[in-house]
Amino acid sequence: MRKGCIQIYTGDGKGKTTAALGLSLRAIGAGYKIFFAQFIKGMPYSEIDALKKLSSDITIKQFGLECFIKNEPTRNDKMAAQKGLKSVAQVIDSGKYDIVIMDEVIIALYYKLITVEDLLKVIKSKPEHMEIIITGRKAPQELIDIADLVTEMVEIKHYYKKGIEARKGIEY
Amino acid sequence: MRKGCIQIYTGDGKGKTTAALGLSLRAIGAGYKIFFAQFIKGMPYSEIDALKKLSSDITIKQFGLECFIKNEPTRNDKMAAQKGLKSVAQVIDSGKYDIVIMDEVIIALYYKLITVEDLLKVIKSKPEHMEIIITGRKAPQELIDIADLVTEMVEIKHYYKKGIEARKGIEY
Repeated sequence: MRKGCIQIYTGDGKGKTTAALGLSLRAIGAGYKIFFAQFIKGMPYSEIDALKKLSSDITIKQFGLECFIKNEPTRNDKMAAQKGLKSVAQVIDSGKYDIVIMDEVIIALYYKLITVEDLLKVIKSKPEHMEIIITGRKAPQELIDIADLVTEMVEIKHYYKKGIEARKGIEY
Repeated sequence: MRKGCIQIYTGDGKGKTTAALGLSLRAIGAGYKIFFAQFIKGMPYSEIDALKKLSSDITIKQFGLECFIKNEPTRNDKMAAQKGLKSVAQVIDSGKYDIVIMDEVIIALYYKLITVEDLLKVIKSKPEHMEIIITGRKAPQELIDIADLVTEMVEIKHYYKKGIEARKGIEY
């Protein structure tokens, strides 16, 4: 059986969630079963529609509110993230998936919506064959230590700085 | 009308082609027409099957041979890359697409299969609304200068170094 790895996509640059989407697409093409958990975000996204349309081999769940965290996270932000982590733990335990993606879960850590101990516990419960993919800015060292692959997306240039706002179909 | 940008994904880390795939997925979800040109690579890939299955809004063409360049590129490698650039120029000129992706074209530059002048000329011929996405390691400064967004994928850790080889559905 294929050995599953733990992959992390972190850093301030554009491309983390996008890479997780690309990995999902590739995995669907190869016939794998995927669970895609999106933390923090609860808004509708173009890519989620496309993935759902593409295949019944992918299950997508959002565990975030309908707006981004502005200053301080609320009690509802925390409840949503904790519910997400609990759901992922159950999904891993079910053994029904080949690939589990926790998109933006590192941001949930950063805002202290979940603890790094709880996240590590969930990741370490994975069966041998399962691939885990984790994204979000500001990955702490404890996460990097247990990962097999870590890519840091470094922002060299970004058009946000030119005043171009997030565009449907490109950023979301 | 939406202003189109020039995006570059470069660096040694995993996630460049994967991000381009994710962008395609998002753009399909939003109803855009996409041309995905894959340079250097000519082998079958899981993600290409999945994308083709997903939508008739994406056209995928490979302009590479069936094996990677090992030492020195051959005349056939060069012909394939130049044919690719010519096709992309025609595609841009046709005005039929919203997003044009040149995956691994920077590697074609690196191997001198095409010139940076020819590539810049093609990119600069894009209509205002068109988004151009370019990937590959070792982006030269001339390319970075004309881009609106540049993300460098930096390899912090990679499982290739642990002896894990490329896996179907994960790397290809």
